[in-house]
Amino acid sequence: MSPRFAASSRSQVPPFAVMDILARVDALRSQGRDVVSLCAGEPSGGAPSAVSAKAAQVHASGRALTYTPALGTAELRAAIAEHYRRWYGLAVDPAQVAVTTGSSGAFLLSFLAAFEAGDRVALARPGYPAYRNILAALGCEVVELDAGPDSRFQPTPEMLDAAASERGPLAGLVLASPANPTGTMVDRAELTALTDWCAENGVRLVSDEIYHGITYPGAGTASDAHSPRGVCAWELDRESIVISSFSKYWGMTGWRLGWMLVPDELVGAVDALAGNVALCPPAPSQLAAVEAFSPESYGEADAWVAGYARTRQTLLDALPALGWGPAAPADGAFYLYAELGDQLGRFGDSREYARALLEAEAVALVPGTDFDAVHGTRAVRLSFAAGQAAVETAIERILRFQGA
Amino acid sequence: MSPRFAASSRSQVPPFAVMDILARVDALRSQGRDVVSLCAGEPSGGAPSAVSAKAAQVHASGRALTYTPALGTAELRAAIAEHYRRWYGLAVDPAQVAVTTGSSGAFLLSFLAAFEAGDRVALARPGYPAYRNILAALGCEVVELDAGPDSRFQPTPEMLDAAASERGPLAGLVLASPANPTGTMVDRAELTALTDWCAENGVRLVSDEIYHGITYPGAGTASDAHSPRGVCAWELDRESIVISSFSKYWGMTGWRLGWMLVPDELVGAVDALAGNVALCPPAPSQLAAVEAFSPESYGEADAWVAGYARTRQTLLDALPALGWGPAAPADGAFYLYAELGDQLGRFGDSREYARALLEAEAVALVPGTDFDAVHGTRAVRLSFAAGQAAVETAIERILRFQGA
Repeated sequence: MSPRFAASSRSQVPPFAVMDILARVDALRSQGRDVVSLCAGEPSGGAPSAVSAKAAQVHASGRALTYTPALGTAELRAAIAEHYRRWYGLAVDPAQVAVTTGSSGAFLLSFLAAFEAGDRVALARPGYPAYRNILAALGCEVVELDAGPDSRFQPTPEMLDAAASERGPLAGLVLASPANPTGTMVDRAELTALTDWCAENGVRLVSDEIYHGITYPGAGTASDAHSPRGVCAWELDRESIVISSFSKYWGMTGWRLGWMLVPDELVGAVDALAGNVALCPPAPSQLAAVEAFSPESYGEADAWVAGYARTRQTLLDALPALGWGPAAPADGAFYLYAELGDQLGRFGDSREYARALLEAEAVALVPGTDFDAVHGTRAVRLSFAAGQAAVETAIERILRFQGA
Repeated sequence: MSPRFAASSRSQVPPFAVMDILARVDALRSQGRDVVSLCAGEPSGGAPSAVSAKAAQVHASGRALTYTPALGTAELRAAIAEHYRRWYGLAVDPAQVAVTTGSSGAFLLSFLAAFEAGDRVALARPGYPAYRNILAALGCEVVELDAGPDSRFQPTPEMLDAAASERGPLAGLVLASPANPTGTMVDRAELTALTDWCAENGVRLVSDEIYHGITYPGAGTASDAHSPRGVCAWELDRESIVISSFSKYWGMTGWRLGWMLVPDELVGAVDALAGNVALCPPAPSQLAAVEAFSPESYGEADAWVAGYARTRQTLLDALPALGWGPAAPADGAFYLYAELGDQLGRFGDSREYARALLEAEAVALVPGTDFDAVHGTRAVRLSFAAGQAAVETAIERILRFQGA
């Protein structure tokens, strides 16, 4: 083969185990098996009704849906800025809000605007694999911080000091609170320690807040009376980049709409990059999403969160019987990330456990290896966005599987 | 300022003159001026009615719009594959179709998958500025080919030989036919010469075909009886990457939906990159876009093209009176790119001409400098997607301006 026929080295993204599992789920379902899948990191309830109604109306009107400004419509940027006043008491200038094509679009723009090729960017392991894969594709050096149950899977200044000593000065830190796959959060004191460390070390914080609003105050160790929706990095550090989304709290994953709060000195770069890389976020999604900020829409989203809270409790109550551990109870999001403990024994690793569970009992989980290539061999992620009935059935089946 | 406060060097995208012009258009309109803008590179008629109706129905049903597969829904990939049989007589496997977030998403994925950082990628100047800006942001070396009226602004094997001699071996060539800003096309013989050159030199062709279907057969020099919609690079070379979109022919710019035809050896890389960089293209747009391939939708789009053809002729008929030249009549798309000739005299360059025209007669054009930093000082781009009435008014005003 001529060299022109090969894919680039920077496009060599590690395959996800979950892809094989999802393919097998489809195959089993086509055979008539009743599969319970706790794999999907997304709500199944859909958008708030006012958002769907507005979208239907926009399309029924037959109006031409042309390009919007690269950073989004003025109306939506203003509505997002107002959301920060409402939830966090923060004054945000709409000019600092960049609407993006999902949080995925925001990560791409953030990493391009804030980091050079060759820059070292730290993030916690376990973590959302797309961070490291996007960073690697853009030529950044990913510095994984080995974050275990002791820090509830979150980075600490001590880990950052150690990483900088070992690898050299860092340029960035990606933080997720609530995190995927663990759901754990940093509280105000922990976030302050991290933003202070970043300021002292000239490190740009990229704060992934896409699960804000899906939180279980009082249930975890990281509840915050002042910001029960999650502490926003801009409460502490206006030089950080805040990334959020309509996907999770409002249940709009397929709409591909997110946003970022952009420090003043990056606004010009993000605007120019967005115009070239994306042109604009989807116009119909933008026109409809302004309805997400009505009292009724917040109310519908909060009702979903109340449902997740009940299902989360069901899962936590079952942990002793499941014999898993240690596990960090999720402060937010809709995931349980648990070590399989003694239950792992006869399977060797989490991939084999997940494969066997799917074949024997038709329950699909994500092996921890997709989030942590080192320690994830012992852990699994369950999404309880699948709903109460699915989780109850899954628990019954897992208990039977493990007792077999 | 600490280094952490600066935007990255790779995000330093040159500003577009059109941004200042569009801001001034808004300001003049808010003062009550009747501005005719021929700047926008997009149709104003909106999507085919069946597409809008399907989108309205999808949203009215209240169904949850969750993630689709990273490369798009199976139904839409199959419909796009069938489109290639219909228009080009080409057999395309739906597994080789990747649905993307506009052609912008396709360019990003193509460049990441096909080229390493440091690779040299050639493209014609004048050209769509986002090609070079995305390539530069991804660390590729952009090799501009000085393509003038002699080659109807398209690259030739001779230009490629000269560029490779001067700069070193090339890894890629980005070709646009019909092109932006000129609307010119390569015919089958010219495209064959280019694909042959690429094959001989181990160069990957990325073929931008987003204006296919908006063509004026028999009017230009590049008409092709076999493929009146434009010659598809896959008719000649299945190792090329073909990029297209719902934006232009079907008038769906704001929907952010495009696609690429991916050579087998890149499908895995593009799939993995897409899942990490974008998750999936907008789900509502995908569900609605399958309606674009009905006879009624093709018919509506063709009616728009017939309108562009009339407006194009009006503009060409006016060229002698305007005293511009040389200009390459557009074979497709909806642009006229013309040198200002003697009319440039008292203004010095195209930016100043455009600025003065907007102030004096409230007609907005894009200066050629946005497409060609070297020779664009003498040229302007007019979009006749603005419609017949707008173009007629613009011609009257430009004649008055130049006669003043």
